[in-house]
Amino acid sequence: MPTVKMVEYEDASPEVRAVYDDFMEVRGTDFVPNFWRTIAAHPPTLKRLWEGIKQVMAPGRLDPLTKEMIAIAVSATNGCEYCIRSHTAAARKLGMDDETQGELMAVVGMFNQTNKIIFGYQVDVDEAFMGD
Amino acid sequence: MPTVKMVEYEDASPEVRAVYDDFMEVRGTDFVPNFWRTIAAHPPTLKRLWEGIKQVMAPGRLDPLTKEMIAIAVSATNGCEYCIRSHTAAARKLGMDDETQGELMAVVGMFNQTNKIIFGYQVDVDEAFMGD
Amino acid sequence: MPTVKMVEYEDASPEVRAVYDDFMEVRGTDFVPNFWRTIAAHPPTLKRLWEGIKQVMAPGRLDPLTKEMIAIAVSATNGCEYCIRSHTAAARKLGMDDETQGELMAVVGMFNQTNKIIFGYQVDVDEAFMGD
Amino acid sequence: MPTVKMVEYEDASPEVRAVYDDFMEVRGTDFVPNFWRTIAAHPPTLKRLWEGIKQVMAPGRLDPLTKEMIAIAVSATNGCEYCIRSHTAAARKLGMDDETQGELMAVVGMFNQTNKIIFGYQVDVDEAFMGD
Amino acid sequence: MPTVKMVEYEDASPEVRAVYDDFMEVRGTDFVPNFWRTIAAHPPTLKRLWEGIKQVMAPGRLDPLTKEMIAIAVSATNGCEYCIRSHTAAARKLGMDDETQGELMAVVGMFNQTNKIIFGYQVDVDEAFMGD
Amino acid sequence: MPTVKMVEYEDASPEVRAVYDDFMEVRGTDFVPNFWRTIAAHPPTLKRLWEGIKQVMAPGRLDPLTKEMIAIAVSATNGCEYCIRSHTAAARKLGMDDETQGELMAVVGMFNQTNKIIFGYQVDVDEAFMGD
Repeated sequence: MPTVKMVEYEDASPEVRAVYDDFMEVRGTDFVPNFWRTIAAHPPTLKRLWEGIKQVMAPGRLDPLTKEMIAIAVSATNGCEYCIRSHTAAARKLGMDDETQGELMAVVGMFNQTNKIIFGYQVDVDEAFMGD
Repeated sequence: MPTVKMVEYEDASPEVRAVYDDFMEVRGTDFVPNFWRTIAAHPPTLKRLWEGIKQVMAPGRLDPLTKEMIAIAVSATNGCEYCIRSHTAAARKLGMDDETQGELMAVVGMFNQTNKIIFGYQVDVDEAFMGD
Repeated sequence: MPTVKMVEYEDASPEVRAVYDDFMEVRGTDFVPNFWRTIAAHPPTLKRLWEGIKQVMAPGRLDPLTKEMIAIAVSATNGCEYCIRSHTAAARKLGMDDETQGELMAVVGMFNQTNKIIFGYQVDVDEAFMGD
Repeated sequence: MPTVKMVEYEDASPEVRAVYDDFMEVRGTDFVPNFWRTIAAHPPTLKRLWEGIKQVMAPGRLDPLTKEMIAIAVSATNGCEYCIRSHTAAARKLGMDDETQGELMAVVGMFNQTNKIIFGYQVDVDEAFMGD
Repeated sequence: MPTVKMVEYEDASPEVRAVYDDFMEVRGTDFVPNFWRTIAAHPPTLKRLWEGIKQVMAPGRLDPLTKEMIAIAVSATNGCEYCIRSHTAAARKLGMDDETQGELMAVVGMFNQTNKIIFGYQVDVDEAFMGD
Repeated sequence: MPTVKMVEYEDASPEVRAVYDDFMEVRGTDFVPNFWRTIAAHPPTLKRLWEGIKQVMAPGRLDPLTKEMIAIAVSATNGCEYCIRSHTAAARKLGMDDETQGELMAVVGMFNQTNKIIFGYQVDVDEAFMGD
């Protein structure tokens, strides 16, 4: 149970309902996940995040699957269950199989390891990594 | 200055030197970055991490550039300067341009945002995201 | 179930019971939350944290509601469910409504986003922000 | 030195320049901080974040100083120097004195402490904190 | 339910089964915890992590109980329930009592507190702490 | 330069000076590190943290070196340079050599790795780890 009351479609203001409708159309689904119905408790945040995510997740230099895997990497580093499960579900739909997920987890784990060892030893940045 | 003395090639034991040599051959460079010369203060860790990184970063389902970008996503989430700069340098060599880096940063930022809002509201995981 | 046995009022030593009594009097409640009954497994920590929290949460330049909202911001950033729920319950009692909570979440989300983008690009601090 | 080239006003596209101009007008300053000139390397992110921050930081239920202090709490929890210094500078302008900053730091420190102890003992959420 | 299917002993490839057998022999148990059966979905990660953990957790300058308590400190800082519970169970077997766990939690809490206050005030490192 | 003015011994109030004097006596040093002179900007926090750290770091079930190493583990996980350097300097004085530090870093790195992989796969806690 979230810490605010979720806004159901039936009870939504026209502004909130417009976001829900756009979400279902863009994503091609017939349900609005808990995340969106929860942040709808604050409509300007709902609208801003939906517009932002549409922009950020649109295909560009990075394809949608790569973007979902980056989202999983961030979410695993932060330990956010909702985020891990929703982005994993999305990545699965886009073709991520067990082998790919295994490589992703291996990379995420390895660099969380080295990040903390580098902190622990306070390694200086090499000149060669400083760019021009 | 790191919190241990870095091990220079000249002073390295044969075991450490073997890792340095393999590193330079595999990466095609003629220098050993500070990270490796620092963790060489504990040779079993040096050897274990080098063998591990070779395995993890080898091409597989994910190509090397995607792996470097995932490493950047993890490192930006953790705030590790050394890690961000070294993986950014590596990704640049593999073809990451400003536009691609911009999309990567946008994805990293967005999902750090949503991760924390989801924590803050304690959103429940949707059944649809729980897999079969 | 916590990883140590909680200390119930009936089983508490006089030292622990004195903290429980003070807690219920100061907070005006008739129950001692799980947090306190858990850390009571180590009485010096119980006493130190209770005295510390009384000092830190007393009204000062910042009013109690603002302090609870800062606690929520910290707890959402760390992803601590117990902490988010207990501070949200406290903030609600002090008058936080959905609109206020929505603004709080928006601020918490936004700056977690910018924190990580700033890490990712390694932005230098402007002279103007360095103080005198 | 950031990992991308900052975009100076003189070199900026009209789209980027419009954000810079709006920033300076809204904030009443005559310079554009490094953060904005860095993310300008990816114009859609520049525009999205500036529009978002204007929305999030506008006065509402929470006043601007409270919002800046929440931003400091998030940034201190994440350890982002740029963020801590820029939001501290902003909060100072809005009236935060040493005493207020001291209380803010005390709250931030205390709840980072309790967050981690609560994780460490795996304390269960009390029914009383679960809302209705 | 994890995001991949766990690999049961009966269904395991010889490579995975060899790790399970070695795990049970080294640890002197007759079951393979969920962690190992989950990462077995990616056999090279299973093998690498098991070999790594055997190396890292072997007695050396630090005894096994100290290593488990360090693992608890890391896991409490990250908020990983599985990790906290599994390392606490291991530390208990090695002799950690409530009093010892209480001291461990006190240290973990205190330095998470000071870490974030030090970030918040941006305290400079003293010359005396920089080593020679 | 910290975000508040440090309080020098000459300028300190009797209350602050008493903490400085006690610090130097207990630690057997003739200087007060930047951390203490910074938080002295808020005297109640100075006094509370000093009394707390004296309690937490006193020898008990865990010896002082073990406590310093746990502090390093926490600080490396959080990436706090000041904290890593000051606790490493303290641990060195108490006898931590390169080999011991190397084992500590190996443990810290390994469990940051497994913590995040466990998050990423959302591994369920085994019954056997839940205690009685």
